[in-house]
Amino acid sequence: MSDTHAIDSLVQILSKLPALGPRSARRAVLYLLKKKTTHMASLIEALQDVYEHVQPCPICGNMDSQSPCHICADPRRDDTQLCVVQDVSDLWALERAHIYKGRYHVLGGVLSALDGIGPDELNLSALLGKVKEQKVKEVILALPATLDGQTTAHYIAELLSETGARVSGLSRGVPVGGELDYLDDGTLQMAFKTRQTIQE
Amino acid sequence: MSDTHAIDSLVQILSKLPALGPRSARRAVLYLLKKKTTHMASLIEALQDVYEHVQPCPICGNMDSQSPCHICADPRRDDTQLCVVQDVSDLWALERAHIYKGRYHVLGGVLSALDGIGPDELNLSALLGKVKEQKVKEVILALPATLDGQTTAHYIAELLSETGARVSGLSRGVPVGGELDYLDDGTLQMAFKTRQTIQE
Repeated sequence: MSDTHAIDSLVQILSKLPALGPRSARRAVLYLLKKKTTHMASLIEALQDVYEHVQPCPICGNMDSQSPCHICADPRRDDTQLCVVQDVSDLWALERAHIYKGRYHVLGGVLSALDGIGPDELNLSALLGKVKEQKVKEVILALPATLDGQTTAHYIAELLSETGARVSGLSRGVPVGGELDYLDDGTLQMAFKTRQTIQE
Repeated sequence: MSDTHAIDSLVQILSKLPALGPRSARRAVLYLLKKKTTHMASLIEALQDVYEHVQPCPICGNMDSQSPCHICADPRRDDTQLCVVQDVSDLWALERAHIYKGRYHVLGGVLSALDGIGPDELNLSALLGKVKEQKVKEVILALPATLDGQTTAHYIAELLSETGARVSGLSRGVPVGGELDYLDDGTLQMAFKTRQTIQE
């Protein structure tokens, strides 16, 4: 179908997005073609807006249309807490949960021997500099509970040991709404070992 | 997060696409932001190309950047066969299978009492006109094997009975690679009833 070049190349580009394959990309394109003046026009506009204005924050690594980002620019956020995350999506997840009012630092990955990601590939020297120069009292490592994530957490804890800041990590346990029966052994062991007294 | 307006509205628009929810839309946006100059730029370009050039073919209803579409414009296609499909996606599926060299007619839906789609909502009078005026010898109804699809097929067969053209439908049976054990009863009954002699 060489004549349908415009549609084909759009399908091909869309199907490279995570969560979309060739079939769902075709469905998306047909959906857009049916809603051309409404949905498709606003999608092009929104993409162009993001393309032109959104960039990584030079301070924390968040993606935002203002620079520094709205979190780094907010004077009400707590300068004494710094939360280290693997990726911008984790930062967004924490913001959606409305539980944290400190600052962030996006690593851009975790240490991984398999993927060849060493300390130099991550945004680590800037982290050490921040904690040293600023009045950071606690560094919260909100890293994935995987082997690589925990290796990275230990590496960072070691790196920051000279600064005197408290280094903490998220607790492990049974997810809210989780059935014990479906839980993996590692999580169950960890949840049992770190069990909490229930206050009456 | 009112300051991240650009990202939020892109996520919102993307999450309305079929096959994408809010979470996968966010992942897609982050992916695009990481590949801004390559992937995101070409996505915007491809979308704009489709937006400006692709439109429904006035003859068959296919979506294409040329008008009439490349199938209707192709002199090598067989004018004596006309394949009726529910939607453009079905036309594309048949084209991908490389089994048919005739012309198409896209209905834009099937009759549905529940959804309030009657004969006037479908592209039916044009179909009757085409079969009458042109040298169509066979109308192949490649409609879904659902109740609504089959109601529509019978309605069209009735509508075209005066034209003298042969009206056929796709056969029902066991899908290639299908296990009998997992098949629904209706398909199994139909496949048994319409069993074929195996040539030696």
